[in-house]
Amino acid sequence: MTFEEQKKRALERLRIRGADEEVEEILERINSRDGFFTTSSCSGRIILICLPEIGAKQEARFIGKWHRQVRKEEVLEAMSGATPPIKGEVWLIAQSPIVHMACRNLEKATAVLRIAIESGFKYSGIKAIAKDNEKVMVEMMSTERMDVPLCKDDEMFCSEPYLDFILVKANFMLERGKDKLKRFGYGLNELD
Amino acid sequence: MTFEEQKKRALERLRIRGADEEVEEILERINSRDGFFTTSSCSGRIILICLPEIGAKQEARFIGKWHRQVRKEEVLEAMSGATPPIKGEVWLIAQSPIVHMACRNLEKATAVLRIAIESGFKYSGIKAIAKDNEKVMVEMMSTERMDVPLCKDDEMFCSEPYLDFILVKANFMLERGKDKLKRFGYGLNELD
Repeated sequence: MTFEEQKKRALERLRIRGADEEVEEILERINSRDGFFTTSSCSGRIILICLPEIGAKQEARFIGKWHRQVRKEEVLEAMSGATPPIKGEVWLIAQSPIVHMACRNLEKATAVLRIAIESGFKYSGIKAIAKDNEKVMVEMMSTERMDVPLCKDDEMFCSEPYLDFILVKANFMLERGKDKLKRFGYGLNELD
Repeated sequence: MTFEEQKKRALERLRIRGADEEVEEILERINSRDGFFTTSSCSGRIILICLPEIGAKQEARFIGKWHRQVRKEEVLEAMSGATPPIKGEVWLIAQSPIVHMACRNLEKATAVLRIAIESGFKYSGIKAIAKDNEKVMVEMMSTERMDVPLCKDDEMFCSEPYLDFILVKANFMLERGKDKLKRFGYGLNELD
């Protein structure tokens, strides 16, 4: 499949599935450019996951997921309302925005990679290069992250002041991620 | 400076500064190969840092740093013994191994990148490509990471059972990182 055919399919998928509101405009700005298309994205989020045992993230169950700032009441409600009830560990995790982009050649990939890193997405990199150099995959990701265990089975680790504190941090990280997305959006003009 | 001259300098720096014990053998295996050299590395670590205010990681002060499993007593001692005394927030952070490698061309870079990702270093990527494609920088990093706030000024968020739990997690991540380093070491044979 040619790059253009792949791009057409990716845009079709995006049209059907949609994307997080805060990242939509960025995706449009990338996809409107010749030689680029996006394959997946997240605008950054705060999640509550339940892990049955240590390290088994593949079996994680989402109990809460927010792409916006979250209040303590919402977190507590998500935990008490979980069905089936919580068994195992619950972690609150704040995640950076992430965008995967296909680029038609190395030159385009390194150009967008530089813009990403300069916009604050320091964990960005080229993840794969097709044999003929005709598709180069770039992952854009930032350092914003927090992983905090809140409880294990019936044992709640987390006092109210601690949860308050954690949510201030998580909400701050979320906003900082979104600021970087905006900076990256402006930076894309350099591609012209 | 040619690639070979840069490699010579990098090896000289490594000889003088040394590297973490657990990663030394890996570095040797990379550096003994034609077309590759390492520029920096860490075998994975557990750190205690003090942040004067929200998000100001650049002004972080290390109060503890371990490249091995750590016991609760050591963590508590590092906190109570900090000079000057702690002002601001203290975070316990578990970090994945990280290795930066220079590769002579794209082919070598994508080969080592594939081995890194297959060994479990999923956050690896090509970070920069010199204009003439004669030096390609690869960053190898894994997903093991935990960032947990422990206290703020005089307010300790962290009960003993909570700290126990966090340290089990952090120590587990550290070991998993080291296992991946070993896997990567074996994987390097594929380069021959």
